[in-house]
Amino acid sequence: MILTVTLNTALDITYRVRALLPHASHRVSEVVERPGGKGVNVARVLAALGHEVTVTGFTGGGTGRAVRERLRDTPGVVDALLPVAGATRRTVAVVDERTGDTTQLNEPGPQIAPVEWTAFQEAYADLLGGASAVALCGSLPPGVPVGAYAGLVRTARAAGVPVLLDTGGEPLRRGVAARPDIVKPNAGELAELTGSHEPSRATQDARRRGARAVVASLGAEGLVAHTPEGRWRAVPPARVHGNPTGAGDSAVAGLLSGLVEHLPWPERLCRAVALSAATVLAPTAGEFDRIAYEELRGRVTVAGETTAA
Amino acid sequence: MILTVTLNTALDITYRVRALLPHASHRVSEVVERPGGKGVNVARVLAALGHEVTVTGFTGGGTGRAVRERLRDTPGVVDALLPVAGATRRTVAVVDERTGDTTQLNEPGPQIAPVEWTAFQEAYADLLGGASAVALCGSLPPGVPVGAYAGLVRTARAAGVPVLLDTGGEPLRRGVAARPDIVKPNAGELAELTGSHEPSRATQDARRRGARAVVASLGAEGLVAHTPEGRWRAVPPARVHGNPTGAGDSAVAGLLSGLVEHLPWPERLCRAVALSAATVLAPTAGEFDRIAYEELRGRVTVAGETTAA
Repeated sequence: MILTVTLNTALDITYRVRALLPHASHRVSEVVERPGGKGVNVARVLAALGHEVTVTGFTGGGTGRAVRERLRDTPGVVDALLPVAGATRRTVAVVDERTGDTTQLNEPGPQIAPVEWTAFQEAYADLLGGASAVALCGSLPPGVPVGAYAGLVRTARAAGVPVLLDTGGEPLRRGVAARPDIVKPNAGELAELTGSHEPSRATQDARRRGARAVVASLGAEGLVAHTPEGRWRAVPPARVHGNPTGAGDSAVAGLLSGLVEHLPWPERLCRAVALSAATVLAPTAGEFDRIAYEELRGRVTVAGETTAA
Repeated sequence: MILTVTLNTALDITYRVRALLPHASHRVSEVVERPGGKGVNVARVLAALGHEVTVTGFTGGGTGRAVRERLRDTPGVVDALLPVAGATRRTVAVVDERTGDTTQLNEPGPQIAPVEWTAFQEAYADLLGGASAVALCGSLPPGVPVGAYAGLVRTARAAGVPVLLDTGGEPLRRGVAARPDIVKPNAGELAELTGSHEPSRATQDARRRGARAVVASLGAEGLVAHTPEGRWRAVPPARVHGNPTGAGDSAVAGLLSGLVEHLPWPERLCRAVALSAATVLAPTAGEFDRIAYEELRGRVTVAGETTAA
C-alpha cells in the first residue's frame, strides 16, 4: 500500500453564499463537508486510481469524528489516524455565487502533546513496514517540532521506502536536507526555499539542498522536474478554468502512483499534469473529472530540458 | 423554572483574522465555540441572573454533541433538547482585527422530519407543566411548519403559562395572531410585520394584531413598550460601543426575569435595557458585563408615553 501522512488533518467545509460582503450577515445556501488535509486529498485520488492507500496523522474532537466517519465512506482508503486530545481543525471555503471567487478561512489545528508526537513516530515506523511509498503532506499543527518532516524522511529512507515531501517554509527547508526522494513545492514554496523566482534555476538549487528529485508545480503552466534521470517540463494542452483547490494534491497522487508502478519520469509527469488539470475542471473542489483526465493524458506535452549553466 | 425554546440551535463559532479580504486565504488566529441560538443565549443570561432555566428545541450530529457538551458546563441551565437525525447548524462570525467589524455566515439548520416535530410538541407540552414562563426564540429550521410558533403560543396559553415570542417574518405574523403575552421584535421585524417605520405607531399596530404587550428593541435607542398597564420608552444613559451580538437576547432575559418576579413594567424595561447595554460592552459576544449591568441599572431613563391618535 501507499502511505500518506497528514499531521494537520481538517474537516473541509464549503459554504455557498449569494455574495460575500465584509461586515454583513449571510445566509449560507449550501453546506458541503469533506475530510481534508493534503495527505487525505492525495489518498482519495490514489484510491480513485485503484491503489491501496492508508492515511495516518492526527485526529481528535467532534471534527475529528466527522473526518473519520466520512473516510469510512471513501472506498479504498484505510484509516490509520491517531486519536489526540485536541480537536481537528476546520477549514471554511466561502464561495461567492456572483463571482465564483472563494474566500478561505483556515483554523490553526490542535496543540499536539509531546507524548502524542512520540506515539505517532512509533506508529509511522510500523506502517512503513507495509508501504511501497510514503507521502508527507501539508502544514504542521502546533506542538509538532519544525524538524518533524526531516525525521520522518530519515525513518522512511532507513526503512527503504521511497518518500515524497510536499510542504513549505522551514519544515520544507529542514526536510529537504534529510534527502527525500521527491519534493513537490509550488512556485511560492520553491522561491521561499531557494530565493530564486526562476523555476528551472530554483529547482536545480533545491536538488543541491538534498532532494533526489524536485518537481515544481507552476499552476496553469504545469510542472518542471529535475531528476537524476533527466529534466522535463510538462504542460497541459490548454489553460483550464475552474477551482484549483486540490490540484497540487492530485499532482502528488499522479507522481506517487507513477513511482510505485515504475513508470518512466515523462509518464509520471504526464499523469500528474492531467490529474491536476482534471481536478481544476471538476465541479466539486478536490475531486477530479475522470473523463477529462483520460482525455487530457493523451494531450499533455512533456519536453526534455537541456542542462543550463 | 423558565423554559426557553430554540428550534434552530447552533454551534456559534467566532474566528479572529488579521483582516478579512474576499478571495484571499486567511489564517484564523483564534477560534471560540459556544452553544447558540437565541433561546440558548436567553437561558444563559437568565441563569446568570439566578433563575432556574430549561432549554428545549432540536439538536443533532457532531455539532449538536458539541452544543450539549458545552451546555453541560453552563451552571443553572438544564438541557431538555430533543435529538434529531440532522446536524445542528453552525454560525461563523469572522472578526476583522483591524476594523473590529464582524462578518456573519449562518448555516440554514437541519431538515426536521414530521415525526420529530410531533415529538417536540409533546415534549414541550410536558415541560410547560413545570414552567413559570416560556420564551419562543429565533428562526425555524427547514421542515418545521411556518405556523409552528402560533401553535406553541396556544399550547402555552392553554396551560396558563405566560409566553414571550421573539422571531421575525411570517412565523412572527402567525405567532402574533395566536395572542402571546409579549412579543419583542426589533425595528426591522416590527416594520416588516406592520408596514410602519414609526416605532410607536408600529408597536400599537402589533398589539392590535393580537399581542398582549409589545416591546420593540431599537438598538442604541433602547426599548419602546406598549402594554395593557401603559406605554413607556426606556433609554440607556449613553450610547455604548462594542459588539451588539446577543443584546436582543439579553433584553428578552431581562423582560422574562422581571415577569416571573412580578416586577412592574418600568422595572422590567430598566433591567432589559441595562442587560442589553452591558452585553454590548462585554468583551465576549453574548456575555454581559455584570459590573456595567449593576451600574447601568441605576441610570436607565424610563419615561411614560402619552397616548397617540
